[in-house]
Amino acid sequence: MKASFIIIGTELTRGIIQDSHGSLLSRELSHLGIHVSEIVIVPDDGSIEKILEALMRNSDVVIITGGLGPTSDDMTRPVIAEAAGVKLVRSDEAWTFLLSRLGDKAYGANERQAMIPEGFSIIENRNGTAPGFYGYGNGTLLISLPGPPREMTPMLYESVLPLLRQKLDLAEDARDEYTSFITAEAKLEELCNEADSSLCWGTRFQDYKISLYVSGKSREERDKAIRLLQSKVGSLRLAEGDVDALSLAIDALKSHGATISVAESCTGGLLSMLLTERAGASAYMLGSVTGYAPQVKRDVLSVSGKVIEENGTVSYECASGMADGVRKLTGSDYSISVTGVAGPDKDEGKDVGTVYIGFSGKDRATVSILFRFSSWGRASIRRKAAVAALLLLPSFIEGKDIRQIADTWDYI
Amino acid sequence: MKASFIIIGTELTRGIIQDSHGSLLSRELSHLGIHVSEIVIVPDDGSIEKILEALMRNSDVVIITGGLGPTSDDMTRPVIAEAAGVKLVRSDEAWTFLLSRLGDKAYGANERQAMIPEGFSIIENRNGTAPGFYGYGNGTLLISLPGPPREMTPMLYESVLPLLRQKLDLAEDARDEYTSFITAEAKLEELCNEADSSLCWGTRFQDYKISLYVSGKSREERDKAIRLLQSKVGSLRLAEGDVDALSLAIDALKSHGATISVAESCTGGLLSMLLTERAGASAYMLGSVTGYAPQVKRDVLSVSGKVIEENGTVSYECASGMADGVRKLTGSDYSISVTGVAGPDKDEGKDVGTVYIGFSGKDRATVSILFRFSSWGRASIRRKAAVAALLLLPSFIEGKDIRQIADTWDYI
Repeated sequence: MKASFIIIGTELTRGIIQDSHGSLLSRELSHLGIHVSEIVIVPDDGSIEKILEALMRNSDVVIITGGLGPTSDDMTRPVIAEAAGVKLVRSDEAWTFLLSRLGDKAYGANERQAMIPEGFSIIENRNGTAPGFYGYGNGTLLISLPGPPREMTPMLYESVLPLLRQKLDLAEDARDEYTSFITAEAKLEELCNEADSSLCWGTRFQDYKISLYVSGKSREERDKAIRLLQSKVGSLRLAEGDVDALSLAIDALKSHGATISVAESCTGGLLSMLLTERAGASAYMLGSVTGYAPQVKRDVLSVSGKVIEENGTVSYECASGMADGVRKLTGSDYSISVTGVAGPDKDEGKDVGTVYIGFSGKDRATVSILFRFSSWGRASIRRKAAVAALLLLPSFIEGKDIRQIADTWDYI
Repeated sequence: MKASFIIIGTELTRGIIQDSHGSLLSRELSHLGIHVSEIVIVPDDGSIEKILEALMRNSDVVIITGGLGPTSDDMTRPVIAEAAGVKLVRSDEAWTFLLSRLGDKAYGANERQAMIPEGFSIIENRNGTAPGFYGYGNGTLLISLPGPPREMTPMLYESVLPLLRQKLDLAEDARDEYTSFITAEAKLEELCNEADSSLCWGTRFQDYKISLYVSGKSREERDKAIRLLQSKVGSLRLAEGDVDALSLAIDALKSHGATISVAESCTGGLLSMLLTERAGASAYMLGSVTGYAPQVKRDVLSVSGKVIEENGTVSYECASGMADGVRKLTGSDYSISVTGVAGPDKDEGKDVGTVYIGFSGKDRATVSILFRFSSWGRASIRRKAAVAALLLLPSFIEGKDIRQIADTWDYI
């Protein structure tokens, strides 16, 4: 099956924003085994008539995004109707929906948003007034979706991909989503192919995690490959579905009604920033100390001068001291500390990527763990350290042996 | 003048990476006043013959990226030669360059990288083996560039844009770059057009700043518009060239040999994270305290309980107390504090976006300033507060009246 896309948006051809529909559609359709042969981006005032005609000659599916707004030049509707050789008619379904949304305001500019090519079917739009629609023209499946990402993206996942799966006779569950933490994307892809190179793997890097998709073959075979992958990366680092480490940590704190504080050195405030990112953070986050200079670790966090002198600030002992210190200082139930070498140069004779993370809790023995993150620059090491801390926190709160968990981690 | 692009890359049509050439070319050509009418993305094994033919009918310039590699299907060269009605010939210039780079290895797969359409000119490629080339076909300027961004981007800036400026009869300095801070992109665009709607403005949002480009008319008229814009946004918020607030703050600290510490509440560690982001941060950054809970402001930062009780934690008094407290605690020369309401809900009866920023210094009177940031969500308010603090720090260190500076700030 071959597909092509027309993406309409003047902000794209003026370079104001970078198109993301093209890569999203490409990725998702590629996962279904569909070959994407052309992506065409045009401004709102462009003409798509000839482009559509040319693409239809060469594609089984053409997806068009944009050009459906009430004030747009509205080129999509009439052009698709023309290409399908039918006229535009008012869809009762779309009109009822518009009336329920807009009431009397539906009459006017919005009115034509209920017009679709005759014989086409509506694609529901939960987040806007313009529904999408699909149908056939000259044997090619034509799919029209609104341009705004927050409208288009859910419609893609909820309606278009299921429709394409059905046309391709692919089972509904042919694609599984996982989330991977603290692995470089290139390494993860390598591990996926080692696990089963005959499956179709896809990854998407998102700052603090990688979304991982797997499709093809049977559920049993996909599960087997995931178990193999899981054993390669270790506990907690491959989670089912779309999750993030911060939510896992916050959920653990909330469900235990616990508070937290943070002592940071190489991460410099990143972990604290993350723990205060979401609304309602004051329910669990009390505060943090960044002890960037050794004297702040000593004077504010009460790490003993002897510990620093004998072990250095990048050490098990200093990490434990920092975690204990900030917990006593703030009176929190739990605390995390991070101290290490973010680079670019070695520090205290320790390699770049050497990071100690400490965990302290009111009814727990303080634990510090050594990580050797592969170096991809300061920002990456800081991010990995913060995510590692967030990932281990729920287990620490639950009283599990987090040192044993971290021992299973490879390729970090 | 109308332009269109063909972007070749299977990794784009498979959704593995997101195309950035389209938006870069669009932005830069739009800045020259060129209208971009179509961007077409195709896989390496696609055919661009008919696409090029169609685009040439409707464009004065067609830029093609990719398809020039030694092992690629090499569709670009013959297709452009065909479209220009000439044959492929070996360019002495390109061949000499290839030999100097590769020696004997130039014979073989690389050899055809020296072939260009007869009568076309070479575009030098500093970072790879495939030169670009340009020439005319049927009156349309055809420009071919290699696909890898690190090769294509410098060629665009060093050769293609100067070439287009020359064809358009635009002077070399026809485009000025500025950096704008703490203004919403939509508002900035509005203000630019108010300043002079006959100039061509371009903006690019980059997390902590907006890059602003202005082109058209004479230097005097552009300067006049910039001065008008400057007067609307206020001091320090529109800087010449490509700068960032963090670098300005770090430069000020370094040139005064001064150290800093930070006390944060609503920013939660963001300012501290930024001040430790660059290598060598330990030269100026001593540490920070995030006092998210009121008792941490009181017990760790030594803000008096009376101050908190009488004025609340979102107040001039608390901001000053936090700044003084963290400076004494860490022994730094200067300090900054941030306390405010990041939302989504009001706090202590104060509106979302209400932020007090305090500055304390060894030979300076402590100053706290009230900001009312327009609300675009927690992340945006936190970012704006951090940038405002960084922007004002150099002036505070220099002993200027930063309250007066901040008083000129509008649309924040």
